[in-house]
Amino acid sequence: MDSVYRVAADEPRRGPGRRAGESRTREAILDAARRRFGEQGYDGATIRGIAADAGVNPALVHHFYGTKERLFAAAMRLPVVPSEIITFALGAERDRLGDEFQPRIGEVLIAAMLRAWDVADIRTAFLALLRSAATSEQGVAMLREFVTSTILASLIQVAGLGDDAESRYRATLVASQVIGLGFARYVLGLEPLASATAGDLVAAIGPTMQRYLTGDIGPADLSS
Amino acid sequence: MDSVYRVAADEPRRGPGRRAGESRTREAILDAARRRFGEQGYDGATIRGIAADAGVNPALVHHFYGTKERLFAAAMRLPVVPSEIITFALGAERDRLGDEFQPRIGEVLIAAMLRAWDVADIRTAFLALLRSAATSEQGVAMLREFVTSTILASLIQVAGLGDDAESRYRATLVASQVIGLGFARYVLGLEPLASATAGDLVAAIGPTMQRYLTGDIGPADLSS
Repeated sequence: MDSVYRVAADEPRRGPGRRAGESRTREAILDAARRRFGEQGYDGATIRGIAADAGVNPALVHHFYGTKERLFAAAMRLPVVPSEIITFALGAERDRLGDEFQPRIGEVLIAAMLRAWDVADIRTAFLALLRSAATSEQGVAMLREFVTSTILASLIQVAGLGDDAESRYRATLVASQVIGLGFARYVLGLEPLASATAGDLVAAIGPTMQRYLTGDIGPADLSS
Repeated sequence: MDSVYRVAADEPRRGPGRRAGESRTREAILDAARRRFGEQGYDGATIRGIAADAGVNPALVHHFYGTKERLFAAAMRLPVVPSEIITFALGAERDRLGDEFQPRIGEVLIAAMLRAWDVADIRTAFLALLRSAATSEQGVAMLREFVTSTILASLIQVAGLGDDAESRYRATLVASQVIGLGFARYVLGLEPLASATAGDLVAAIGPTMQRYLTGDIGPADLSS
């Protein structure tokens, strides 16, 4: 494995400069990642291409960041890896609730989202992503693919939905209410929504999430 | 009434210059309105103060624009006056549906919103307001007050809700879903939501609007 570390040309092999060299290499990778994600979108950018731009071996990028989503999260300075949080938070509730999980997934989901927003760094990152989507065409394309390929995909999986258009429609309906809640509560600060308790919001919005995920949403023509 | 027209110092009383003078006066009023709304918010700004800044009689501002909301809409270059659209669109459906209006207000509301967004100018203005809220602290305060004092107030009235905290909470829940739908569909372009038909969305989201406005949303503590 040691050879993986010695790919970057400017990286010293040992001694006090080692840490600074690794730090420079990581910065070069993150710079290349931001550029590639911005230009090619989340789906289009590859770890291979990013490594080539940064002048390092792809194995080093994998070693540092593990997955494309983790690299994206690091490049965008996200405080968490969204799909891991979803899988972790909802997976824990699924284990705890057993058969009660599926019929209560709506309230579980909105409660988890509100807990995440209570963490200042996560709320700040969420709002920064909304802002970048609202102001930059490039930001929009990147964020759309990122949300679809990671956040919605992990939501679909943890909710036990299938790999089909209806499941994706259900997940995007959920996303619309979550995004709107975040925007109305934290960006606009519409009262009394903005200072409603988490308990109030779970009671009001949980059933919406539940119906979007598992209930009757009407016969949708998603063939287009 | 003619004296009302002759308040602006630079406005010629007759002849071919009259139209240009009125146009300059209107621009001065709109400039003053943008400044006052931005600095004092929608609620804080007054027609009297705006008229003073523009060097005209308040009666002239009333004559040109009628209401503060119409002046705001003109200053922000909104293609419509939001509360008038709500009152008009929902009022027409209320007359048509009679006793069936209240139990179907959710689908009526989301269908009206989707029809409004189909008009390019309205969609553009909606997205511009979201953007200004997402990027400017000043824009946020102004927009929050405008949305609360005009859009949500007219929604509460046409829905037959009361003048209390629970009604305002219901209206802000509706706003959260509408804003999120607009953001997910038109800004992010999340698929398949972005290309779902209006009929699909009315079937999926109408019941959400209905429950937020008239259904069980849990016991909310809105005393704060």
